[in-house]
Formats: sequence, structure tokens, C-alpha cells
Amino acid sequence: MSENLILSIDAMGGDNAPEMVVEGLTIALDRHPDARFLLYGDEARLKPFLDAHARLRKVCEIRHADDVITNDAKPAQALRNGRQSSMRLAINAVKDGEATGIVSAGNTGALMAMAKFVLKTLPGIDRPAIATSFPTMRAKTVMLDLGANVECDAENLVQFAVMGEVFARNVLGLEQPSVGILNVGQEDLKGNTAVKQAAAMLQEADLPIKFYGFVEGDDLAAGTVDVIVTDGFTGNISLKSIEGTAKMFAHFLRESLMGSVRGKLGATIAKKALLEFKDRLDPRRYNGAMFLGLNGICVKSHGGTDGLGFSNAIRVAIELINDGVNDGIKDDFAHISEAILLVRERAEEEARAAEREAQVAAEAARNEGKDRAVSL
Amino acid sequence: MSENLILSIDAMGGDNAPEMVVEGLTIALDRHPDARFLLYGDEARLKPFLDAHARLRKVCEIRHADDVITNDAKPAQALRNGRQSSMRLAINAVKDGEATGIVSAGNTGALMAMAKFVLKTLPGIDRPAIATSFPTMRAKTVMLDLGANVECDAENLVQFAVMGEVFARNVLGLEQPSVGILNVGQEDLKGNTAVKQAAAMLQEADLPIKFYGFVEGDDLAAGTVDVIVTDGFTGNISLKSIEGTAKMFAHFLRESLMGSVRGKLGATIAKKALLEFKDRLDPRRYNGAMFLGLNGICVKSHGGTDGLGFSNAIRVAIELINDGVNDGIKDDFAHISEAILLVRERAEEEARAAEREAQVAAEAARNEGKDRAVSL
Repeated sequence: MSENLILSIDAMGGDNAPEMVVEGLTIALDRHPDARFLLYGDEARLKPFLDAHARLRKVCEIRHADDVITNDAKPAQALRNGRQSSMRLAINAVKDGEATGIVSAGNTGALMAMAKFVLKTLPGIDRPAIATSFPTMRAKTVMLDLGANVECDAENLVQFAVMGEVFARNVLGLEQPSVGILNVGQEDLKGNTAVKQAAAMLQEADLPIKFYGFVEGDDLAAGTVDVIVTDGFTGNISLKSIEGTAKMFAHFLRESLMGSVRGKLGATIAKKALLEFKDRLDPRRYNGAMFLGLNGICVKSHGGTDGLGFSNAIRVAIELINDGVNDGIKDDFAHISEAILLVRERAEEEARAAEREAQVAAEAARNEGKDRAVSL
Repeated sequence: MSENLILSIDAMGGDNAPEMVVEGLTIALDRHPDARFLLYGDEARLKPFLDAHARLRKVCEIRHADDVITNDAKPAQALRNGRQSSMRLAINAVKDGEATGIVSAGNTGALMAMAKFVLKTLPGIDRPAIATSFPTMRAKTVMLDLGANVECDAENLVQFAVMGEVFARNVLGLEQPSVGILNVGQEDLKGNTAVKQAAAMLQEADLPIKFYGFVEGDDLAAGTVDVIVTDGFTGNISLKSIEGTAKMFAHFLRESLMGSVRGKLGATIAKKALLEFKDRLDPRRYNGAMFLGLNGICVKSHGGTDGLGFSNAIRVAIELINDGVNDGIKDDFAHISEAILLVRERAEEEARAAEREAQVAAEAARNEGKDRAVSL
């Protein structure tokens, strides 16, 4: 283990851990020959896998952990009682500089709470966000937040916009990615206070961001913009709605084709095309949600995924590291926090002015009332 | 026109009105032989259609309207300046008792604002909601709100739950429909204040509702519950996300099949099965969003639909009337408003008690601080 890229792995997180994790590492091994892995988990269970796989053993080091964070553990519980868990020790490795990033398929809430507590946020970021990129009719789109922040104010959304833009530029390789805020309509008047204020800030601030404006739910699959910004409540529900729909669609398609002889025959002949179609929307291909805004790379794999899915979460972590996403975010915030500050001050000044005006108007109305009362 | 079921129709609303509307009526004519229609719109444009269709002429009466509400009109503008519009006059017909329901494919915001202003809400309902039912892997599910209320409190959500339940019982014919609140997780601790409070109210109040608890985005397509309750912001975005995904899925499937000779051949042989599949998810089949909670039936058709889609919006209005949804809502609210009130009072009392406790604790902390300062 030298100056190679080193990832720490929570080997015990996920429904089929550690088998699924080891399988994922075996796939990652071929894809990323330079990567090294610190495997946190039950040594007695992990060692036999490495003993049986010489090449894997060469790039992995087992670090024994007594505990596992369960899926039903509350974030606060995990923080308090999980100090010796595979998840926590894997995060600590990033904090201690032994690894550059951590991948876990465990409890999302616990992972976010621990990562935030141990790694802290990057300068300029109030709250980290969960982000993922997915296929659209046009290209790939990145969306954030997907559930870390159930309630967001305008400034949180603006910070998400900046982080998403850096990701789209550095990892998706887009020169000037477009950024949209998810809303119930495209007109400026629609939506809640947070999205309206965030849009105003992105429009007015002198940021190097191509702000498209508001986008709607159907713009996700259409790929209208490269970065979709939303609060964690809406983002989580809308992404899961999409996942559920994709499953239903596949189910209905199978039912229709298998329901008749001609359907079955057609499906057999078109098998390659249908497999290609299935592969294009395979959720394992898009596995790996990124925790953006932390002082270290942290990627959450779907808990129910298999080895292929987990290997893709590893790929996501390696991309984030190799493409320098955190340095990009730091750079951007160093340059733009002043611009954001200016807009915020202006907005506050305007709010104060409006309040003064309202007070003057109320005072005038009261005086008029008094005058009228006197003249009666 | 006697004691038949009478609908008023905004003949000028929608992208392809009035042609699309007349086509929809022609289809509805065969399906609902007892229905009669008041057609509000430009008489000069509508008359030739009826002159050319003797059967349609017999069940329709044209009521001339000078104005049309455009798609970009703001709700307030429409209310102020649209008093002679086809949309407004069609709504007035329900208020005046000439028709039992109104169908329009025009501007959603304007339709909701006018319908609320003219028809008023049912007793017990603070805000009407937009609802729609859609196919799932299990059966049909009804979801509300879909955009009428961007910000909702717990009580709004509880009212939506009651209205949705009545719809599922009366129109979907379910004996005891299950009701879920859309959230980012199933645990009680997750989500924003409104959903947590609404869930507590539905759990604690002695309502005749089978409350399932929280559901997530992927439960929409899975059909986990019969009624999904959410705020208008989340509901609108999640439903549109699903619509967009269905389009993308169909597009990718077509691309994969048409990309090879075997794919094309297979698709030709399985044509009937593929058409059946397409038909099952045809958005026109599920056209017709209901405005629930108003003193009168109001259905909004998709603006871009065709005659078949519009005829389905007419069907939705007729179902709501024949199945007595508004009477059901009125009945329910007469019985349950007391139960809701009780829970609200209890919640307020608890909040007051918590505040008193916090004050006492703060006072104690201050005193302790003083004591310590004194002893230093």
C-alpha cells in the first residue's frame, strides 16, 4: 500500500454483506488496477474470501471491526453507540488520511450523520447533500439533494446548485452545465418561498453558473438541464417514484409479452434488443449516491444491490477522487461566497425596506382612522 | 334537457379546442346516453360542428361566450378579467344549478381559482385538492394533492386523506381503502413537521379510516396503498416525474427494438402484445384530474389531450356525480370534524405543556448559572 488511491470500505453494510461487498471488490479490481482497499468488518468472515483470492488479497487489507450498524438504527444512536462499527472506523480512516474516500452500503441516515460528524463540511457549505446521476433522454443529469435535508432554505439550494455544477463539470465533463431548480411550474410566481428565493439568488448573483430557471418533474427524464436542484424531501420522493415506475413498466412489458404465443415468439427473436434495453435502465449501473460537501469522499451504495452494483459505487468514489470534485467545490466557494453574500445582503436590505414601508403605510392608515374618528 | 345528468363544458379550453372538445363529446355521447351538455364558447365556431352531427346536436346546447382564458393568464387576472370567459360561465352554470359538474381543458390555476371563488369549498374543507387515479402494479391508486396547495399543514393533509378515502370507496368501489402519507421513509421520525403531525392525527383521531402510515416514492407504482396523501408541491413533481419516466421508457424501448433487424422482426411478430402494453399505460386513459372539496364537481382535462382523452375527463366527472362523491365527503366531514377537532386540541395542549416545560428548564438553567456565577 503506497501512494496509490486508497478507499476504505464498510464491508459489513448492505443486505448481502460481506459476500456482496467482496464480489464488488473483485469486479473493481480489474477496472481500477491502481486502487487499494481497507476492508472494515468482521475479520473471521472476511479472511476466508481473501485467502481464496490471491489477487484480491494483494490490494486489500482487513481492519477488524466488532460492531455493525443495523438498518433500523437511528442516526443519533449510531453516533453514540457505533464508535467501533465497521462504518464508523471506515469513515475515521478518511479523516485520518489513511484513505481518500469511503464506500458503504449500510444505513443511509447513520452514514450521513457519522460522515458529517467525523469529516465536517467543506468551507462555505452549511449542509452536505446526497446526489446521484442518472440517464435521461438527452444525456446524464445529476440531481441533489435526495434526502439528507428534508427542509431546505434558499441558501441551501444555492449551495447545492454550486456543488452539482462542479460535479457536472468535473465528472460528467460538461463545459458549461445548465442548472435548474425543481418546481411545480416554470413561471417565476410559482412554488414555495425557498425555490423562489433561490432562483432569484441564482439569477442575480454574479456566479459563473448557467442558470436555466425552474424545471418540472417531467424534465428529469427529458434531460432538460444537466443539474437538478431540489430539497431532500422532494428529491427523495421524486427519484423513488421514478425507480418504482421503471419497475412497473418492466413488469407490465413482461406480462404483455408473455401473455401470448406471438408475444413470446417476438420476444425471443428480439431478445438481444430487449436485453440491451433492460441493461440501459439497469439500476445497478447507476448505483452509488454521493455525499457532496464533506471534507472527504463518501459514497452510499444501495443496500439491496449485488456485487456489480457495489462495484459501480466504488467507481463513483474513484471518479469523485480522480476528477477532483472536492477541490473544485472548495475553489468555487472561495470565489463565489462573496457573490452569494452580496445577494443575501441585498435581499435582507430589501426585506427591511419593505417592512419599513409597510410600517409607514400602517401608521398612515391608523392616523387616517384617527382623523376620521375625530371628524365623526 | 330535462332531469338528465347535465355537464357544463368549457369548449374553448385546451390546445386543440374546440375541435378536440367536440370530438370528445362525440365519444362521450355513446358512452353516456343519458348525459346532456352545455357548451360554453364561441357560437360561430361551435355551431358548424353541431349542424354536422345530428345526434350530438340533440344532447348539446351552445351558450355563447366572448372570451377565452389563455394558458399564460395568472389566476388573479383570470378572476378579475375573465368574467365573460367560457371557463367562468361554465363554472357559473354549476353554481346556478343548471349543471352538476364542469369539465375544462384550460389553464389549471385559473380554473382552480375561479371554481374556488364561485363554488366555494364543502363544509369542513379549508382547501380543495387536485386528485387523480392511476394504474399501479396492484390496482388503481388515487393521489392528492397534485398542485393546488404548494404549502400544506397537517390539517390540510388530514382533510385530503378523508376526501381521497371517500373517492376510493365510492368511485374505485373499495370497501375499506388504505391511506398512506408520502414521505422520505417509513419510520415515524422521518419527514417534515406537516407529515409527522398529520400521521399522528390520523393515528390518534377516532376516524373510520384505515391509515397505513408513511409510504415512499416507489410505493406509488407498487400500489402499496389505495390513497396517497401529499402536499401539492411534492405531488405535482412526483406525478410529473412518473409521466416523464414513462415517456423515456417507451422511447428507449422503441430505440432498442428499431435498432436491429431481429429487433424489428420480433416487434412485428409481438405487435399485438406491444400495443396492449402501450394501451395499458396510455396517459389518455387516465386523463381527468378532479378538484375535490368544492361545492360542485369540477374536472380538469390535460390541455394537450385529444378527443379520446377529453372523453375520459367527461367520464371522470360523470363517475364523481353518479357515485355521490361530494355527498360522501359532506357526510364524512359532518361525522369526523369533531374527532379532528379533539386531536387538534390535544396537540395544541401538548405543545403548550412542552413550552411551559422548556421555560421551566430554561429558568432553572439560568438560576443555576447565576448560582455558579455567585459562587465563583
